Amino acid sequence: MKNKAITPRDVDFAKWYDDIVRAAKLATYSSVKGCVIIEPNGYAIWENIQKTLDGMFKETGHRNLYMPLFIPESLLNREKEHVEGFAPEVAWVTHGGSKELEERMCVRPTSETLFCEYYANAINSHRDLPMLYNQWCNVVRWEKETRPFLRSREFLWQEGHTMHETAKEAEEETLRMLNVYKKFFEDYLAIPVIVGQKTEKEKFAGAEYTYTVEALMYNGVSLQSGTSHYFGQKFSKPFEVTFTNKNNELENPYQTSWGVSTRMIGGLIMVHSDDNGLVLPPKIAPRQVAVVPIGTDERVINKAKEIVDTLKASGITAFGDYTEKSPGFKFAEHETNGIPVRIEVGPKDLDANQLTIARRDTREKMTISLDTDLVSYVKELMENIQNNLFETAKARRDSQTYTATTLDEVKDIMTNRPGFVKAMWCGDTECELKMKEIRGTKSRCIPFEEEQEHISDTCICCGKPAKTMVVWGIQY
Amino acid sequence: MKNKAITPRDVDFAKWYDDIVRAAKLATYSSVKGCVIIEPNGYAIWENIQKTLDGMFKETGHRNLYMPLFIPESLLNREKEHVEGFAPEVAWVTHGGSKELEERMCVRPTSETLFCEYYANAINSHRDLPMLYNQWCNVVRWEKETRPFLRSREFLWQEGHTMHETAKEAEEETLRMLNVYKKFFEDYLAIPVIVGQKTEKEKFAGAEYTYTVEALMYNGVSLQSGTSHYFGQKFSKPFEVTFTNKNNELENPYQTSWGVSTRMIGGLIMVHSDDNGLVLPPKIAPRQVAVVPIGTDERVINKAKEIVDTLKASGITAFGDYTEKSPGFKFAEHETNGIPVRIEVGPKDLDANQLTIARRDTREKMTISLDTDLVSYVKELMENIQNNLFETAKARRDSQTYTATTLDEVKDIMTNRPGFVKAMWCGDTECELKMKEIRGTKSRCIPFEEEQEHISDTCICCGKPAKTMVVWGIQY
Repeated sequence: MKNKAITPRDVDFAKWYDDIVRAAKLATYSSVKGCVIIEPNGYAIWENIQKTLDGMFKETGHRNLYMPLFIPESLLNREKEHVEGFAPEVAWVTHGGSKELEERMCVRPTSETLFCEYYANAINSHRDLPMLYNQWCNVVRWEKETRPFLRSREFLWQEGHTMHETAKEAEEETLRMLNVYKKFFEDYLAIPVIVGQKTEKEKFAGAEYTYTVEALMYNGVSLQSGTSHYFGQKFSKPFEVTFTNKNNELENPYQTSWGVSTRMIGGLIMVHSDDNGLVLPPKIAPRQVAVVPIGTDERVINKAKEIVDTLKASGITAFGDYTEKSPGFKFAEHETNGIPVRIEVGPKDLDANQLTIARRDTREKMTISLDTDLVSYVKELMENIQNNLFETAKARRDSQTYTATTLDEVKDIMTNRPGFVKAMWCGDTECELKMKEIRGTKSRCIPFEEEQEHISDTCICCGKPAKTMVVWGIQY
Repeated sequence: MKNKAITPRDVDFAKWYDDIVRAAKLATYSSVKGCVIIEPNGYAIWENIQKTLDGMFKETGHRNLYMPLFIPESLLNREKEHVEGFAPEVAWVTHGGSKELEERMCVRPTSETLFCEYYANAINSHRDLPMLYNQWCNVVRWEKETRPFLRSREFLWQEGHTMHETAKEAEEETLRMLNVYKKFFEDYLAIPVIVGQKTEKEKFAGAEYTYTVEALMYNGVSLQSGTSHYFGQKFSKPFEVTFTNKNNELENPYQTSWGVSTRMIGGLIMVHSDDNGLVLPPKIAPRQVAVVPIGTDERVINKAKEIVDTLKASGITAFGDYTEKSPGFKFAEHETNGIPVRIEVGPKDLDANQLTIARRDTREKMTISLDTDLVSYVKELMENIQNNLFETAKARRDSQTYTATTLDEVKDIMTNRPGFVKAMWCGDTECELKMKEIRGTKSRCIPFEEEQEHISDTCICCGKPAKTMVVWGIQY
């Protein structure tokens, strides 16, 4: 049974995506152009993401704080590359009540400038370092084209901002947080990622360099899913952040920032979901098990309730669906919403001393005896689902990862079977721009040494000697 | 030993408050006028508040979602009283990037209008009701005078918004959430509160009526700490929110909203703290126990670590302070930060088979044998501290609650020994305005019937027959 409200993924991927967002009630529109309402089903995913990531940030020594929403224009202007990158896409507040402001302020697109101003006051000595802070907040970027979760004028994210005594420590932090993201994507979101460094052209406005987490969607389009930036002293100098180092000299500290956003929910959809609706990895699903009684027989209802209680007592987020809808309707609804496991309890099942269990990822149905240890069974099943989602995504990603040595090959790939393309590059921005002419293909990242491959000797664009392998892709 | 960085509370209460905020590193200023940076120590309190309240909201059936930050001017204008109340204090976004917006948008001061627009689409039938939603977010109100946590241009809060089939259900919800707040204030924040209804003059712009939670600060000034509003159909009509009721007729649903904010942190400070710094109820303290080794003897350090591990394993948030600062410095620092319990581990203590324990509220020091069950002891001690803070605050509040039958009495009270004043009122706004001439005294609330007292037969202001008892106070 196909969910008729959802356009098949292979027919029209963009429409399929919008249908999933609508059918699973993840987000909807309002009269605020370019912004979405994140509905309870979508927000609950974000809450789970926050809870897990926040724990990982705290384990690595970070504390949360909260910076103002606004940035005075003069503060934004303090670092030249940064303001050039962000000024064209900020929203400006010009009036408070009926009065025009003396200085207009933008709604934060990111908070490096505010953190630097704060650090300039808070840091005095090397004993104050490192400062390891993070904030969960909303940011605004005035995008022209928007898509729910993938690109919208306002989005929710976390932004870590840290200051260190030495360049080495800051560089280690940049890498540490990149690896936290990689772990989170692979272990929790079940999304395999490629990590590496952005090219000069693609790095964050104002950074020395940017590391990135890149994922491949079902349709072969890449999604930049998280970034970790090393700033060196590029902000600490113009913002006059200084500390007395161990030699009693005044020095500017070394800085990082790193962030991931509600865009991850878009990634979750485009990697795992299918024509029947949302598919969620159990570790991130707000509701893991739906228990559906078939009929209203007291024996059935009591058994359903008992199962819900048993599962909940062992930390599984289970719920019973006792609404008046038909079982078939409930099954479809829970599938659309991406509940990883469904347990059906019917009178026939009970007569046969059994339960029917359906897993969302493969849509297989299993029958198990009532004598089975249900908690262990469900936990193992969820682990299987989690692993299967990752392995399926990885196998697909690998099958959509190509190598190329000519632009014609890239054109063929990006036109007929898009994905990641590994190709050599000379290091010139001009060659990146030439690549962009092929359906907007951009460098995704320069993988780290251990992931580098020697595809050819020369740059795919200009034929000059190649410096490095780059992973290229069409992007969201 | 007094903390010299803190102005004594009885010398200059306002300066004392600012000193606590600064010394305990709860918040600080930036170049964004009227906004504060909530620093990690302050934000951790907010995280604990959120965690507890969010659990209480979910237990009462509410789900979280996220609405856009902006409200188009035409949407804000849809309910007349509402826009009149809020328009003078909103921040206006007029430009996106370099382009002027076709319609300017305000940064949300509250989100009734956005929720109504959403509900108009989401609600069709009585089967869709009730809709019980909440959001945690930032809001902006362009205040002229600001104080950290008490009044600032941007603050963090939660706003619950619900829609119901009948007026009765919505009124029950309004009361239910008021009671959730009361319970949270008294059981977690250890702040005794008076609840009741706001007068017409003081109710929320656009509400049928407003319930409020009112607390009294150490200096006798009242703090409106949370509100719960009943809207009836006042928004659902202009916003054309309709549903098909059980008689198959089109009807407008009945609405509530309710909110509390980071202002509660200001209340926590002004009710419990003292001249040595912050005092926090153990149930809301981010760090409950500080373990301070005296010296660097391995035996001492190991014991300290063992104690931290033991306490943490039983769910108590304990930490060891192994920094190089002197014990006296550490004691003062943990007192300033409001850590409820301090455990000192020194070589002399260990020789005598004992530990020294200090409680933050009374600053008493106790000695206990190492054979004591430490977890039980600390848990009981924290319960004692929690209760003591509540009882102390309640006794003081009661001693600062007066009755009055003449304006001269009110003037005397508000000038020499401010607090809550119970006095009779005729119901006329003119009499409220007359009361306001006495140091800005305002009606705090009309207590519910069971809390009503008969102070006199006539209105304290005009001498006409009284309708009800009102609790009055000077406000933040």
